[in-house]
Amino acid sequence: MIVVMVQTATKAQISMVESRMLSLGMQVQHSFSGEQHLLIGSDGSPTLGQSLEAMPGVERVLWVRQPYKLVSRPVHPEGTVVWAAGRPIGGKALTIIAGPCSVENEAQIREAARIVQGAGGNFLRAGAYKPRSSPYSWQGLGEQGLALLQAVKQDTGLGIVTEVLDPRQIEKVSAVADILQVGARNMHNYELLKALGQVELPVLLKRGLAATVEEWLLAAEYLITAGNPNVILCERGIRTFETYTRNTLDLAAVAAVKNLSHLPVLVDPSHGTGKWQLITPLSRAAIAVGADGLLIEMHPQPEQALSDGEQSLAPDKYLALLEELKHIAAAVGRELP
Amino acid sequence: MIVVMVQTATKAQISMVESRMLSLGMQVQHSFSGEQHLLIGSDGSPTLGQSLEAMPGVERVLWVRQPYKLVSRPVHPEGTVVWAAGRPIGGKALTIIAGPCSVENEAQIREAARIVQGAGGNFLRAGAYKPRSSPYSWQGLGEQGLALLQAVKQDTGLGIVTEVLDPRQIEKVSAVADILQVGARNMHNYELLKALGQVELPVLLKRGLAATVEEWLLAAEYLITAGNPNVILCERGIRTFETYTRNTLDLAAVAAVKNLSHLPVLVDPSHGTGKWQLITPLSRAAIAVGADGLLIEMHPQPEQALSDGEQSLAPDKYLALLEELKHIAAAVGRELP
Amino acid sequence: MIVVMVQTATKAQISMVESRMLSLGMQVQHSFSGEQHLLIGSDGSPTLGQSLEAMPGVERVLWVRQPYKLVSRPVHPEGTVVWAAGRPIGGKALTIIAGPCSVENEAQIREAARIVQGAGGNFLRAGAYKPRSSPYSWQGLGEQGLALLQAVKQDTGLGIVTEVLDPRQIEKVSAVADILQVGARNMHNYELLKALGQVELPVLLKRGLAATVEEWLLAAEYLITAGNPNVILCERGIRTFETYTRNTLDLAAVAAVKNLSHLPVLVDPSHGTGKWQLITPLSRAAIAVGADGLLIEMHPQPEQALSDGEQSLAPDKYLALLEELKHIAAAVGRELP
Amino acid sequence: MIVVMVQTATKAQISMVESRMLSLGMQVQHSFSGEQHLLIGSDGSPTLGQSLEAMPGVERVLWVRQPYKLVSRPVHPEGTVVWAAGRPIGGKALTIIAGPCSVENEAQIREAARIVQGAGGNFLRAGAYKPRSSPYSWQGLGEQGLALLQAVKQDTGLGIVTEVLDPRQIEKVSAVADILQVGARNMHNYELLKALGQVELPVLLKRGLAATVEEWLLAAEYLITAGNPNVILCERGIRTFETYTRNTLDLAAVAAVKNLSHLPVLVDPSHGTGKWQLITPLSRAAIAVGADGLLIEMHPQPEQALSDGEQSLAPDKYLALLEELKHIAAAVGRELP
Repeated sequence: MIVVMVQTATKAQISMVESRMLSLGMQVQHSFSGEQHLLIGSDGSPTLGQSLEAMPGVERVLWVRQPYKLVSRPVHPEGTVVWAAGRPIGGKALTIIAGPCSVENEAQIREAARIVQGAGGNFLRAGAYKPRSSPYSWQGLGEQGLALLQAVKQDTGLGIVTEVLDPRQIEKVSAVADILQVGARNMHNYELLKALGQVELPVLLKRGLAATVEEWLLAAEYLITAGNPNVILCERGIRTFETYTRNTLDLAAVAAVKNLSHLPVLVDPSHGTGKWQLITPLSRAAIAVGADGLLIEMHPQPEQALSDGEQSLAPDKYLALLEELKHIAAAVGRELP
Repeated sequence: MIVVMVQTATKAQISMVESRMLSLGMQVQHSFSGEQHLLIGSDGSPTLGQSLEAMPGVERVLWVRQPYKLVSRPVHPEGTVVWAAGRPIGGKALTIIAGPCSVENEAQIREAARIVQGAGGNFLRAGAYKPRSSPYSWQGLGEQGLALLQAVKQDTGLGIVTEVLDPRQIEKVSAVADILQVGARNMHNYELLKALGQVELPVLLKRGLAATVEEWLLAAEYLITAGNPNVILCERGIRTFETYTRNTLDLAAVAAVKNLSHLPVLVDPSHGTGKWQLITPLSRAAIAVGADGLLIEMHPQPEQALSDGEQSLAPDKYLALLEELKHIAAAVGRELP
Repeated sequence: MIVVMVQTATKAQISMVESRMLSLGMQVQHSFSGEQHLLIGSDGSPTLGQSLEAMPGVERVLWVRQPYKLVSRPVHPEGTVVWAAGRPIGGKALTIIAGPCSVENEAQIREAARIVQGAGGNFLRAGAYKPRSSPYSWQGLGEQGLALLQAVKQDTGLGIVTEVLDPRQIEKVSAVADILQVGARNMHNYELLKALGQVELPVLLKRGLAATVEEWLLAAEYLITAGNPNVILCERGIRTFETYTRNTLDLAAVAAVKNLSHLPVLVDPSHGTGKWQLITPLSRAAIAVGADGLLIEMHPQPEQALSDGEQSLAPDKYLALLEELKHIAAAVGRELP
Repeated sequence: MIVVMVQTATKAQISMVESRMLSLGMQVQHSFSGEQHLLIGSDGSPTLGQSLEAMPGVERVLWVRQPYKLVSRPVHPEGTVVWAAGRPIGGKALTIIAGPCSVENEAQIREAARIVQGAGGNFLRAGAYKPRSSPYSWQGLGEQGLALLQAVKQDTGLGIVTEVLDPRQIEKVSAVADILQVGARNMHNYELLKALGQVELPVLLKRGLAATVEEWLLAAEYLITAGNPNVILCERGIRTFETYTRNTLDLAAVAAVKNLSHLPVLVDPSHGTGKWQLITPLSRAAIAVGADGLLIEMHPQPEQALSDGEQSLAPDKYLALLEELKHIAAAVGRELP
């Protein structure tokens, strides 16, 4: 932590800041940059340190150390492989998770599962509990949806990825899911993260709509410090001024997080773009940038979908995408499942 | 809902879109804009309609109607007054809610309450449960904090505003609070909103960091449709590219929401700017723009605060602010409590 | 400037960074924050310093000093008053500049001027050269528009504020204008700024759509270093994810810039919101936050405007606004012209 | 154009809107969505239409048609190939433009050219005129820089890509350059675009920091309507809340623009990320998403660069990148030059 004093700071002001830093248990060094006095302390609690900006003579506080620890790349330099449903996520083989936005009925989810399985896929995604912006939008089948996922799982052996919205749902969802998804709107729901830190199932943690890379990694840190090291990150686009796409898919963040952290990182080009026409090129780009896999919305009949049809691939386009991905995967030393 | 077809759309494609719209229960009219065919339907479910973008020949779907209903201004053209702790929020008298970011200890919260009460204030704000970006930051006193708030409430008669993070906390927090605060990071936590729709206590709903005005109003709609009409909105800044301030306080949204909705709207200039130096001018502006009151971080000793000291007013500055506000309030036909 | 080394930086790497800093003419001090080595130099050229991030062992470069100098508040602690057309901008009296987006024809601009003058205004705004997003949109009357402005100026004595888009227009526009406006889209047009630094006429410098406060002040610094100290800043909204308003008016930036700089600051609520319904409340807020005046689009018949009608006040609403502003101005110790 | 009336709109209000639309030369149809009256007109001038929002009873105006025409994909469905220095841009072969941010001295630019040429490159990029945020940053060598580029061009036969900031520079820069670059900060500089529409040299048009895809395409439309069809687009990152990277590289916009327009699109991962460590993965992703080539900052000694060293590849990393790109290019049916 570096406290930058204003040029006109008095000795008394500098002395008071030093005292406060010492009282917070920091060691303090003094330095100068041009005519501005600097007080340099070992990085303690960011929170406590930030309050120093309330002291007279302080211009601002700069931070040296990144606030996350356990997710940092140096903790596992070789990268973490998370196992779910007996399959590795984060190794040489890419992970492809596909399926509809939500479980709508038995025929729909069975057909979706059949397509995923037929294409050699390992994981089926579909929501039973849905976080919808409007109370008037369809809210998902809930427990009935979980039951349908359970049935499909038994029949096909596919791993199941489904969302959990609330700590009170964890037990029920865990009985069916192989990976518990935390959606973008819940990335900052720290009570949910703490509760998910107490289960063993892998958690797929989507980046929040307005979350910085640092905040995203800190959300993962919540899960790990609470006891669950099985964390998979997922970039799904951030909110920007551009409205042509639903979100702005931040593939640089994927490359950055692969450098900063040892955790596997997937990409969701469906939410990332909001347009089915863009899923294929962005899937190619995601694999090329170094993602460990994809989360793709695929629906047997997108135009009839109860949600997200506009950003779901039809089955034929999904199969064509997988074909294209083989070549990209090979070009970066990866392979399809 | 208006479905815009591409210029090259075939009759068969138009016919299929019409069929799908009819099957969703819409009446359909046809029109043209230049050379593009339009299908106009009564606005049904936005979700189902959006999936029409997956159909061949469809360029995009435009929406006519705003998706919120119960929060709309025409429902209560004269504006809603919410009552909490026997005081009106949304009437001619402005509401000033002040206090520290979090309850830190008995001396601190008693001193804060003394200052608020001494200045003629009605409501004390302070968090017992805190949503922190880092698991290593101080997480609040929890139940012990609630007990301290309860004690202060009994001694001073101040109304208590404090945050609830999780449906499992609602019962405990409701035993102490007069207004339940939903923080910006939980505005999209729809399970929490549904649960809060089942209590009678007023809910202070902060705008999410990246929430549009429409999404913010839809979050309020969740509370009302679930049974709780006592909703108070609070603008607290949105996340933009500007980093000089912690957030960008969107005062135009306050004026807009006062037009669009009948709900009272407060402004939080502390989170909105992240700098104590900017609280006073932005408080003046908030009242001038038409806000129904303020939510202000005030701490007996900001530089010693366990959180948010840099965006808290010291007591002397808080008192000076109230003095300034008297004049602004009068200029817009309002008054201080 | 502070160079933060990675924890694993070697002595050789630190030594090379130090050498490079010395070769750039900096004095270098060493310090530590936790286990990270810091090299602290006097702030030299930000550009040269930033390239140090390309050296092995360097994590990143932090900056201590703000890069602007002549615009800084300490240079003129009492604040600068810019004079235009014999009227002060930045003093106790507020500046109200009003008029249509563009000069459309003689009748329109004469009528607009009549209204501004009748309401006691000093400055008429209207564009002869218009920067339009589309080549198919109306591009303004050009020289013919300047001639009309000249005629109105002679008849009414109003000061004229009009935009200059290109260094080649400066001479012609200067023959008519009392204040040369640089629009948001040209704030980063440094060749234009350098050219405007060589005239004496005051320049109204709008903030760029995506410009930080620092970049905005640096743009002003371009004008002053080039020789023109008569700079008036104007906040007109920044581009964010919110689409309900055309831009997000950043009133906190106004308060911030009044602290950071000695230059006068105006606010443009027309472009800031894009909706005529929001001009009045945001004008009140702008004065309350501490702005030195307003730039308002007012059109004799907004619905017939060739541009920006949707964000222009009709004459009766303009007169009503001025009435409201009297009270707000008085509440903050200012007065209308 | 669709004018949406408020639910309470009167017949007289609807009639007045219709009259105004007819007076603008539109044909008008009437329709309904739910209880809201719609007036549908052929899309005329967006500007004139927008002013209808100033009329009583109008809720808002929706647009049907995209405002750009000549850049649209249907105009040249097969895609445009732009020729510069005898080399095609936009065909099967990718275009790689590399070199330092700016010409610093003869040795530096000769060494950069030697590396580019040695690696089989066709185009050297380097700025003689530089748009810098601060007047205190190095502003480029100007004419002397152009002379050095001319010398290097004669010796190596490389095509030269260099920036033009101002209409007054076009003649001089055109004498040396094979492609004229318009930087992000000048994308909205419509006077510059109009002037560049009158030369024959290809123009590389970077996307503005806060420009939507639509505005970017409209800027290209300015060039073509003014007479220059040789336009190359370049995505270089947009400004968002994320600060870990300098900008947010919007690769979905590249895929979108390849659908919407027939123009070739390059990607600049140096400005797009601001970090040399991210150039390689984002270059791979750019080719995978469908870009027609790359614009890469490469400097013989990045740590000594007078500008942008932190986002420049050192020569060895540049050569390694080209090796990687061969595989990605092959995977998407493209090839390196």
